Amino acid sequence: MSSITPVILVGGSGKRLWPLSRESMPKQFVPLLGTQSTFQQTLQRVADRGLFARPVIATNDAYRFMAEQQAKEIGMEIEILVEPSRRDSGPAMAAAAAYARSQGAKALLALASDHLVIGAEEFRAGCREGLLAVGQGGIVTFGIPPTEPKTDYGYIRPGSQSIGPVQKVAAFVEKPNAQTALRYIAEGLLWNSGNFLFPPDVLLSEMARFEPAMAAAAEEAVAKARKNGSTVFLDADAFAKAPAKSIDYAVMERTDKCWVVPARFRWSDLGTWDALLDIGEADSAGNVTEGPVEIDHVRNSYVRSDGPLTAVIGVEEVVVVAMNDAVLVGHRDNLPRLKDVVQRMSDGKHKAATEHAVMHRPWGSYQDIDRGERFRAKRLSVNPKGKLSLQSHKRRAEHWVVVRGVAEVTLDGKIMTLHENESIYIPMGGIHRLANPGEEQLEVVEVQTGDYLEEDDIIRYEDIYARV
Amino acid sequence: MSSITPVILVGGSGKRLWPLSRESMPKQFVPLLGTQSTFQQTLQRVADRGLFARPVIATNDAYRFMAEQQAKEIGMEIEILVEPSRRDSGPAMAAAAAYARSQGAKALLALASDHLVIGAEEFRAGCREGLLAVGQGGIVTFGIPPTEPKTDYGYIRPGSQSIGPVQKVAAFVEKPNAQTALRYIAEGLLWNSGNFLFPPDVLLSEMARFEPAMAAAAEEAVAKARKNGSTVFLDADAFAKAPAKSIDYAVMERTDKCWVVPARFRWSDLGTWDALLDIGEADSAGNVTEGPVEIDHVRNSYVRSDGPLTAVIGVEEVVVVAMNDAVLVGHRDNLPRLKDVVQRMSDGKHKAATEHAVMHRPWGSYQDIDRGERFRAKRLSVNPKGKLSLQSHKRRAEHWVVVRGVAEVTLDGKIMTLHENESIYIPMGGIHRLANPGEEQLEVVEVQTGDYLEEDDIIRYEDIYARV
Repeated sequence: MSSITPVILVGGSGKRLWPLSRESMPKQFVPLLGTQSTFQQTLQRVADRGLFARPVIATNDAYRFMAEQQAKEIGMEIEILVEPSRRDSGPAMAAAAAYARSQGAKALLALASDHLVIGAEEFRAGCREGLLAVGQGGIVTFGIPPTEPKTDYGYIRPGSQSIGPVQKVAAFVEKPNAQTALRYIAEGLLWNSGNFLFPPDVLLSEMARFEPAMAAAAEEAVAKARKNGSTVFLDADAFAKAPAKSIDYAVMERTDKCWVVPARFRWSDLGTWDALLDIGEADSAGNVTEGPVEIDHVRNSYVRSDGPLTAVIGVEEVVVVAMNDAVLVGHRDNLPRLKDVVQRMSDGKHKAATEHAVMHRPWGSYQDIDRGERFRAKRLSVNPKGKLSLQSHKRRAEHWVVVRGVAEVTLDGKIMTLHENESIYIPMGGIHRLANPGEEQLEVVEVQTGDYLEEDDIIRYEDIYARV
Repeated sequence: MSSITPVILVGGSGKRLWPLSRESMPKQFVPLLGTQSTFQQTLQRVADRGLFARPVIATNDAYRFMAEQQAKEIGMEIEILVEPSRRDSGPAMAAAAAYARSQGAKALLALASDHLVIGAEEFRAGCREGLLAVGQGGIVTFGIPPTEPKTDYGYIRPGSQSIGPVQKVAAFVEKPNAQTALRYIAEGLLWNSGNFLFPPDVLLSEMARFEPAMAAAAEEAVAKARKNGSTVFLDADAFAKAPAKSIDYAVMERTDKCWVVPARFRWSDLGTWDALLDIGEADSAGNVTEGPVEIDHVRNSYVRSDGPLTAVIGVEEVVVVAMNDAVLVGHRDNLPRLKDVVQRMSDGKHKAATEHAVMHRPWGSYQDIDRGERFRAKRLSVNPKGKLSLQSHKRRAEHWVVVRGVAEVTLDGKIMTLHENESIYIPMGGIHRLANPGEEQLEVVEVQTGDYLEEDDIIRYEDIYARV
């Protein structure tokens, strides 16, 4: 049996799970359930090297460091395919297919990075079954047996032809209304999970039939790609020529080569907060709670705190998600409105609409811990071997106190080592760099003083992440 | 016309307005409406020296520094009467009466510190009218014309006798059910606001009739009181002998000397969050909002944020109060349950149930801004002329960075002055003190490192607030 190359698609800003998911760190990177992100859970789902090759992550420049960091945390090796612009899933899938084909892949498994799958063994069994149709040039999708008449999923109508448990797709059908959804369930239709298994050349040749410009642009972007270690940068000019269109519209709904494996695993696209209530373990009143929360006379609600002590009293069918810098309260019926509400807040000057308190950088992360009229305090967390750029500031001085690990500090050409409980003063204009030479995380409390304390007061002289 | 001595009663932990109100800083000290606390608003209501003498604040040891600080902020001179133990309002009022009498007061105005009054001129007019009955030995209460059939207030039935607009009280009646409340309104009963105007000796002689032990204990506690500047410490042993009972049960419901002035000012006891919705300016959907909040399809709700960006979608008749460290979501009908819920959370290990992020001290305040495995960061805010105790720590070192104002630092006998953007290291065991010699607030970011970072690792050598 030939092995499968997983391609994990990492994009999208996940507004519908705000405030846990925000543009600066969208839902696939957030530990929504347990301690790992769905991106990490997806990686682990394809960790079996007997069946799967090393995964390829198709993402953009903003998220590639996060993908790298999160893969490293769980000890997974990955390749990264960087999309130079957002062109929807069609071009992304085509470029992934062209790249995988160039590496000799015979079967490609395209997975969303933000879905939940419960049942890793059943998932792998589904992949093995799908290979039967892939071997005959089929494009296989995973169909989920519906548990309720959902109106926000597309459905798949299986046909009569089959190879083992894999059935030919008669039609992909659009999101139905509630009544039609009930009929679909009665007729044996399946939810379209949007994850696909296929031979790369079949996807590309089908795309060449229906969307020749898209296929050509993707193949050219791969042919002209620039490789740096295990990161592949698609050619920007070529990729930009691809029409922006989803893979469903571009190929799946038009080709006659689609097959469906009925899934025996539990699945959710974690599309809205409601999904967390569906999946969580509810108490006798139908509530799922997480974190420091106290509920009283509450029914059928999801109450979660990632920080603040949260009391909820006398409500039903609501979702409450509390973080230190952002709070959501919504009736379950109205959650589809969240995306618009977040968009509205993003248009204003509310930082928390789009940015988490913790901001991720290639070298680690930082977070604001205090702010006043002429000062700002941050905690910097530098990964082992991480290195900030060599830089200076025109309008602020900085005090650094090492609170964990070992720091290598460069200041005006001098290099010194600071340990826990040691501090240093970086005067205004001083050319400096902070690095973590150790094996343990480095944590520094930074107190800035000055009359202007924004991120754009920075002159970069050198950067190992090529941000100069 | 003799002038009135206001006595402002400051006690109670205000659980029903959690999380803005917490035991560490209860509702009377919190700016619930606008920028001033209700305590400060109460002080300003009696600022007219033509009618009122310098106010006396009856409070406990925990709250006296806060009362002092808040009075200073608005430039009001006060006297403080410190109750050595909590004995309910009867003994507090008796001690205040005994103290005021000893200072020559002829009329005492006992005011709650956590009520809202809109209409300062009408309030003063009510006091002047009340003096008519006080001149004839009456105890006068302010009756509020009901606006709805409230079941959580006591009511007053006026009798036929009157002096000008002041009517004799026929009876105080207990909190009614909804139907009875409607009848009370029809019969012209008034809400009992719990604020009283009376000659101190009349209150004391009436108390001596009904509760002789209480009256005797209060008089003895005043006779043996210790005075320090404008602070009077009631004698603890004497005061402890007073039975704990409210002034209503002890005197008001038993005496035949009560009169009532119908109020022409707007009044609220701010008993629950609902009151803020009653009082605030509602939009066309009946919502009152405050702070960085975004509402969508919300009706008849109070949504307030004192920090986090807060989105509320598709709910009705709810109260949402968001702070960085604590969040409340409650249906308006169930708000009376909040007190119990907060009590339940207090029993656990949730700091935010009882303590605010900002902790007040005689010298100013501090707040945790970050915390990790072997470190803790705080911002210290020291009032002008404020002085922390001379102290040392066994298990932590401290780094101080001055971010505003001027610091006088004592370290192992040496005194030095630090300005903005200067820092100092306090080694473990170093005997040190931080003080603000200036006229402006001093702000310091403190980074502690060590293996134990709690408040109780402190040896105090000297303290200007007598906490050694």
